[in-house]
Order: sequence, then C-alpha cells, then structure tokens
Amino acid sequence: MLLSKPSRNGFCILHRTHWLREMPWRLHPPACMAWTTSRNHGTWNDAGSTRRRVMVAAGAGLGLGTILAYGDHRRRAAEPETPAPAAGPPFPVFTRKEVARHNSQASRVWVTYGSDVFDITDFVEAHPGGKSKILLAAGGALEPFWALYAMHKQEHVLEILRGYKVGELSPEEPPQPTPGDPYAEDPQRHPALRINTLKPFNAETPPELIAENYLTPNALFFKRNHFPVPVVDPATYRLQVQSSGGRTMSLSLQDLKRRFPKHEVTATLQCAGNRRAEMNAIKNTNRLGWGVGAISNARWGGALLRDVLAEAGYKPGDKGHVCFEGLDKDQSGTVYGASIPFKKAMSPDGDVLLAYEMNGEELPRDNGFPLRVIAPGIVGARNVKWLAQITVGPEESQSHWQQKDYKGFSPSVTWDNVDFSSAPAIQDMPVQSAITEPGPGACVCPGELTVKGYAWSGGGRRVIRVDVSLDGGKSWHMAKLTGKEQLPGRAWAWQLWQLDACVPEGTKEMDIVCKAVDASYNDQPNTVAPIWNILGVLNSAWHRVHVSVGEE
Amino acid sequence: MLLSKPSRNGFCILHRTHWLREMPWRLHPPACMAWTTSRNHGTWNDAGSTRRRVMVAAGAGLGLGTILAYGDHRRRAAEPETPAPAAGPPFPVFTRKEVARHNSQASRVWVTYGSDVFDITDFVEAHPGGKSKILLAAGGALEPFWALYAMHKQEHVLEILRGYKVGELSPEEPPQPTPGDPYAEDPQRHPALRINTLKPFNAETPPELIAENYLTPNALFFKRNHFPVPVVDPATYRLQVQSSGGRTMSLSLQDLKRRFPKHEVTATLQCAGNRRAEMNAIKNTNRLGWGVGAISNARWGGALLRDVLAEAGYKPGDKGHVCFEGLDKDQSGTVYGASIPFKKAMSPDGDVLLAYEMNGEELPRDNGFPLRVIAPGIVGARNVKWLAQITVGPEESQSHWQQKDYKGFSPSVTWDNVDFSSAPAIQDMPVQSAITEPGPGACVCPGELTVKGYAWSGGGRRVIRVDVSLDGGKSWHMAKLTGKEQLPGRAWAWQLWQLDACVPEGTKEMDIVCKAVDASYNDQPNTVAPIWNILGVLNSAWHRVHVSVGEE
Repeated sequence: MLLSKPSRNGFCILHRTHWLREMPWRLHPPACMAWTTSRNHGTWNDAGSTRRRVMVAAGAGLGLGTILAYGDHRRRAAEPETPAPAAGPPFPVFTRKEVARHNSQASRVWVTYGSDVFDITDFVEAHPGGKSKILLAAGGALEPFWALYAMHKQEHVLEILRGYKVGELSPEEPPQPTPGDPYAEDPQRHPALRINTLKPFNAETPPELIAENYLTPNALFFKRNHFPVPVVDPATYRLQVQSSGGRTMSLSLQDLKRRFPKHEVTATLQCAGNRRAEMNAIKNTNRLGWGVGAISNARWGGALLRDVLAEAGYKPGDKGHVCFEGLDKDQSGTVYGASIPFKKAMSPDGDVLLAYEMNGEELPRDNGFPLRVIAPGIVGARNVKWLAQITVGPEESQSHWQQKDYKGFSPSVTWDNVDFSSAPAIQDMPVQSAITEPGPGACVCPGELTVKGYAWSGGGRRVIRVDVSLDGGKSWHMAKLTGKEQLPGRAWAWQLWQLDACVPEGTKEMDIVCKAVDASYNDQPNTVAPIWNILGVLNSAWHRVHVSVGEE
Repeated sequence: MLLSKPSRNGFCILHRTHWLREMPWRLHPPACMAWTTSRNHGTWNDAGSTRRRVMVAAGAGLGLGTILAYGDHRRRAAEPETPAPAAGPPFPVFTRKEVARHNSQASRVWVTYGSDVFDITDFVEAHPGGKSKILLAAGGALEPFWALYAMHKQEHVLEILRGYKVGELSPEEPPQPTPGDPYAEDPQRHPALRINTLKPFNAETPPELIAENYLTPNALFFKRNHFPVPVVDPATYRLQVQSSGGRTMSLSLQDLKRRFPKHEVTATLQCAGNRRAEMNAIKNTNRLGWGVGAISNARWGGALLRDVLAEAGYKPGDKGHVCFEGLDKDQSGTVYGASIPFKKAMSPDGDVLLAYEMNGEELPRDNGFPLRVIAPGIVGARNVKWLAQITVGPEESQSHWQQKDYKGFSPSVTWDNVDFSSAPAIQDMPVQSAITEPGPGACVCPGELTVKGYAWSGGGRRVIRVDVSLDGGKSWHMAKLTGKEQLPGRAWAWQLWQLDACVPEGTKEMDIVCKAVDASYNDQPNTVAPIWNILGVLNSAWHRVHVSVGEE
C-alpha cells in the first residue's frame, strides 16, 4: 500500500482523493518539472529521461519506502512484456471500441486522454487514489475523472501517464448503422456509468463520484433515454415554434445562437425515478431500478425560452401550457413529449432554457444534442431532449409521459384501480437528499469518518440544512453544505454536503441516515413504504446506508 | 337520547352535526312555520302558541317516541322554575361578562343570539347535535356555531330558542380600563376558544369545530397575540408608509378603502407553533402548547400591498424586504415587527393584502383591527396585526420575532449552541395536515367511522392528496378533499377532508394517522422527534390519534 497512514475518511478501502495535496512536490515543484505539453492534450512522443528525472525529484520529497515501491511499479511498467512507448511515431491506432474492450485487469486496463491511448494495468495497484477509483475509468476516457479530481491536472501527473502510452485513437469513428438495430447509432458512452438498460440507454453516475464535483462532468452525467438517440445534422436542424397567431416559426441552431442572448443557468436534473431501487425492494414496480445516481448538476447555456416565446408573439399574461416534442421516437413513430406551465416558461425568474451548451461544451448526443429544454426545478422528464417542436395551448401535453407516467399516487393505488387523471403531472419535485459515501455495506474504520452526499429541492427552494444521523435517526448532526450561493427562489442547483464525524471505539456497525430541509422548511419522510407508488417515482425518504466498522 | 339510531360517524359520544337534515320537516316545512323574525336578530317578545304549532307539525314527521321525549324537554323548559319569557317587555338586561359566568350546567348555561340572552340549561341534554357541542357555546354567542352548522339558521330553530329567552344584552359595554393591568382593555372573547394563555391572549379553535366549515367564523378563529390588544380609534388611525423617495405617506382607513381597489383572498393562517404540544411531549420547549387548532381559514378583504407600495413609488423589480410594525407593544415600548420578501409583496400572484375585512365583517380587535397584513402562504407571524408602519429596505426586519424567533433548527441545536443567524426566518410553511375528528382518546363504535381533518401547504402549493391510515401507517386510504378550487400556485386556503371508513368487528383500538401531499409532491415526515427543535415550531409530522373501539 502506497500511503500507510490511515485515510482521512476512515474507509478500509483505499480512497484518498487528496493524496497529491499531501505530496511535498506540489508545494515545491522541482525545476526539472518545468516543461510544456500540448494545450489540447496532443500526442506525446518523448518519454525517455524526463520521467526518471521526475522520479528522482519526487523521491527527494517522499518517504524512501514509498518511492521505492512506486519506482518498482514504474520499472515494471517499462519491462518488455508491457507495450513500451517508442521514441517516436508511429504508434498503433485504436478505435474507442477497441479501447473499451480493455476494461479490467484481466483484459488489461486501457484509458484514453486526448487522442492518446494508455495501458495503465501496472499502475492500477499503485494508484494513490485507490484501485477502485482508477478502475472506474477502465476502457474509457480519463477526462471526466480529472474534471472531478482536479489535482490530476498537473504536469508531473501527465508525465507519469506518458510512460504508459501504447497507441493513439483513430481520428474519426463514423457511426456504423446496423439495419435492424434502432440503437446501432447510439453514441459511445463512458464505461464508468452504471447501466440500468442498454437499449434504450439508461445509466447513472457512479455513486462514489456524485459528490466529488459540484458540476457533474458531461460524460458522467446520468442518462435517461426513452428511445434511440436521434442522429441530428446541426446544419439542417430546425426547431419549429408555433406562434401565437398560429403560424410556425422555424429556427436553425444558428438562429437560436445569434438572435437570442445566451443565458446560463446552473441546474440539477433529477429523474422522477431516482432511488427507485429502494421502492422496488419493498414491492417491485418492474421499472428501472435507479440507485441514488439518477441526478446530476451542470452549467447550461442557451436561449431563454421566454425570449423565443416572446418572439413568437406570446405575452407574459397568457395562460396554459408549453408543450415540447423531441426527435426521439419509438418504432411506431410516437415521439417523446411533455409540457410545463406557461407561467413557469414566461416567468423572469423561471430561467427556462433552450440549451445548446452543457458545462461549456456542445450538448452531448445523450443529453439532447443539438437542443434541449432545461426547466430548472422541474422533474427531468419535462426537460425534453433533441427538441423538435414547441406549441402553446390550454392543455398539458397529451403524451403518454405527461398523462400516464411521471405522476405520484397513494400507496393504496394499484394497477387495477389507478385513475391517472386524479393526480397532477409531476413538475416541481420534493426535497431530496442521499448519502454517496460511504456506500451501502462498506466497512469503515473507527476514528474519523467522512460522510458525503447531495441535497436538492424542486421549485427553486434552496436546501438550508442537511441532518445526518449515525444511529439510524435517533440523534442528528448538521452537515457542512458546500453549494454555491444562489438567488432566492431560484436555487436550481443542488448542495453537496459533508459531515466529518467520529466513530467511537467499539462500534460494530452503523445506520447512517440523511435528511434535508428546504427553504419552505419541507422535510423528507422517514421511510419509503408510506410513499411507495405503482410508478416507483418520487422516492424522497430519508436515505439510509448501513456500514460495518472494522480495522483497516 | 333523542335519536336512537346509531350516529353516522360511529362515535360513542353524541355527535350528530347533520341531525336537522335528517328531519322530514326540513324537506316539507309546514305552512304554520311561515313567519318573520327581525332581520338583525332583534328581540322577540311573543313566544306563545306558535311554538306549540311547530311541535305538532314536527310530530307528524318524526317517530312518536322521539317527539314525546323532545316534547317533554320542551315542557320542562316552560315550567315555573325556569325563567319563563314574559308576554312583553321589559326583560332584565345583562352584560356579556354576566352572561359569560353562566358557562356550565352547574352555573346554568346561558347563550346570546343577537342582543337576546337565553338560558338553555334544560335543552342541553336534548340537543340533537350532542351535549358536548352545545356546551361549547355556554356563556357566549351562538352565531359562530350557527355559522358552522348552517342548519340552525331556520325559523323553527329560532322559535325553539325563543322559548328560553331570559334577558337582553346591555346595549353598550365600553372597556373599563384598570390601571396597572395592560390587558384590561382586551376584548371579550368567545368562551369556546381553547385558551393557552390569557395575557397575552392565545387561544385556538376547538379541534372538533375546525373541519366543520371551510371559513372559520371570526369569533372562533385562533388568536395569537404577543401583547395587549391595542385600542385603536378608526377615525384617527393612520398607516405610515415609507415611500421610495424616503418621505412618509400617511394613510387613513378611509384612504385605504377609497384610493385602492378592494381585493379579496381566501387564505389560511397558521401559527408556526401549531401542534407544538406534540413536540413538548417529547421534550418540553416551555413555549405555548398549541394543539392542532392554531390554524384557521378566512376570506380577507383589503387593499393590495403592491398597490400601496406602487403608490409609494416602488417598482416590481426592486429588491429587499418589506418590514411591518404593529401598534402592539410590550411595557418597554418594543413593538411587534416582521418582514416578508419584497418580491412576494409585489408579485401579481402574491395576493398580499392590507386587510380591513374578515369574512365580510370589520376586522375583529383580536385579529388586528383596524388593519393587518395578510401574506397568503406565509407563516402567521409575518401577517402583522394592528399595522402601524411599512418600510422597505435591503434587510429583513430587525425585530426579535424575525431574527430570534420563528426559525427552524436541527434537533441537535440547543440553547447553548444556537446560532440564530444560521437559519432563515420562516416564510413559506411546509405541507401540514391533522385529524380533527375523532379526538385523541375517543371511543368509536364498530361499523362506519368518519374521520375529518384539514390539510394545507405554504407558498400557494395546493394539497393534492390526503392519505389516512387506521392501522398506524401500515396501510392507507385516500380521503375525500372538500376544498374550493384555487388558482395554480395560489392555493392559499386549506383543504378540509373526510374519510368514511369501516371499523371491522373485533377491533379494540386504532391508531388513526393522516399525511398530506402538496403540488410539489412534498410529504410530511413520519414522526415528531427528528424535527423537534428548541423553538417548537414547524411540527408537520404525520398527525396521529389513538382511539378505542367500543359499543355505543
């Protein structure tokens, strides 16, 4: 084990996200580390002596045993049985699919960074942040993780990585449509995502990564698709907006970008089915068994929906609903649709976007490229992706997903007696929180314990407090909230939280529980059963994680 | 017992609010009942034979045994030992205080209606609605009860009452200030109110009356005073409004009524401490032990605050807080104060009133005469009564009640470690519900059971569902909601609800539980302990009533 002192958070598993901050070289970088790399993470063809220089410099600042162990791993990486970096081109060229096959220690662990491919199998055990964390990247790109763990973005880390280069990515991988498989043109996904269903693609952020960064990297943002991902040519794409006079306004992507000011909003999206697995454990709903990761947070950029509706002739005092249709559809041609209240769409405080940017990048295909609705504070299902059409009318969307799904019912309602018209379509969501670390069943160490998680409420209601219990809800501690400042009534983004607690000697197990309170002082219900419902939506009960306590 | 068939709601106690609807004469009033009474409930001096005619007519439609029992009571009421109504004036004259002393069967049961005084002691046992209900009126006015139970407002009922007249109210009862008692000029209150403290006066609506009427009669509306009730001369009263330019606008009551359109809003007010008794039962907060009755609903009329603020030069886009000061003050001269966000005050959907009317009547003294704030959806404490002054500024009110009270804390916070600045002042309130019938410890009958209660949520969030459990929360039934239609996002008024359920034979006891869900799908927490707080506010846990089941 590389660092022998107990981890800060007391987990028995290796889990040290702050390891580099503890290394002396970070504070006093040796002069030999001053070099340059390509700004856009281009290929590197010179590994050679520079790596050895770094090792020596690092050795000066770290314990000798540590460095010897580290050096041993690095030497083994350079042995002939490992593909060694050549002094110059050419490197073999691999597709992303080929890289993706190397997703375990058995198949060797390959990762990409920029357009380079690395075999890091021999580094896995030595990874100071823990084997489990680095394996999340196996077969995929490092960038989403380095966005979470910003300490990696330093030259000496890049230099270490460089020693493991085995190839380069093929520059273009056009989709290969397979007749008969409507999902054949779905995009490549990051292998770290926890997949619920592959077709349609539904996957959540790995829970241990959720609370690592306020903004979820795009590749790790949860994905909730109902159908195949539409293939859209941005050059010919048009958004159809029904004007108040009844005519249709057709807008290209360039029209949206040029004719309307860009507005940016940080907003959390949550699937109505987030945490459904806990409901399924009580009585199976036979619907996607989401864990706590069907929620993510991003900075969105786009045109304000109210600007576009104003251009289409609508006035703030008008009434009704704004209905959206996507380009995604089933094999019978039924397109996905949903609506939000006109009042929300037109409110100066509503911040509803037609978004084409996500965390400063072009909207990824899985997240709605080229254009999606971002209706902050409102359930994910109304944030229609691959937006094709906007209409305004007196009625809500007549789609299945507005009328016969994404509604909440009493636990007494069954499929035999359900009256879908009796419950309103979910818009705002209730106050929610979950523990993301430690995970269920983890073994934690006596002494210091760090509990992490997220909390969020719908309707712009800020989370004002998170209470954490280590004894199943008998006593409570206040967690430290680390969310950003938000405007009153427009708190669209989650709060991440952390509790540094003490596990008393002699403790054998713990029931860790969290509950959040929002600005309307709404509380979460204690248990899942009384809010269980046939659709398995709206699980906002206290989140509970049972852990055992043992020695490291 | 007058009506021998089992009561509709299955209670063992007499409790039949719908008795008159079941009486045939209501559907077919005999011709002899067509007479006139004074429109303003003036005095009646002719009882005589008409009463006997009514009894005969009624006898034709009711079971003979019933009528005989009824007639016997009526005859006894006319015996010489009971003060009999004279054929003409004069009746003795009594003050309301004198009437109030006759508030039990031991001291004889007197009530007033209009300006007449009645001794109904001998009718109490015969009251078809039950002895417990009629005794709520003992020593006070009948009007608030007849507002709840509208079936009383029929001529034959007035005629029955007439037989018990013993006097008339003295026409004027000017307050008698007692030097040294700052509460000496407090108004007379209805004796049915459940008093928590007399000075200052804090009293709640009797729980069994709460769900009887959508609009709570003024006399039974809960009262929450911090200080003596100010004595205000409406002719000289002035509201001081700080204008945006810094000058002060002084408005008389007539100015408010004439210069600004009257706006009406039905809104529920709830004290932050409603249901504190349940918190005190866990750990005493040493604060007022409110039951479930620190909540009431009324139709308010007044000027829109936003109209007055616009007149004072404020614009909708301005920011900050609107601070209110009342005329009520402690002996050191500290006045009550509170504030609401400027945005709420100016929002076209905020419906914030400067109210001078309550249920179509002049605002009663206990409820803020001559002018109070009605900030719908917001905790009672910000709805400042006896309004004296309005200012607008960047900060919330600096009053004790905004800064050091009416805030929510974690159960882990104690008086030793509380940081008042760490919690926001309560504005919106969380979703709430309570059972008002049956009462705790009641004995209900096997068979049909009617459970009644109220449900409300802050911020204009409509209550969309109330779930009721008869087995402590294991299984649930949906209650029937009987609230009026309200605008989306502006559901300021409560929903009353009712569940007609069946108590299976053999049941010995029941844990009746209710929980409500609001339009944001917020749920109530299951239990009180995890939301207990040092101020004893915001108890929105499931409400639980334990009853035993027995034979009538």
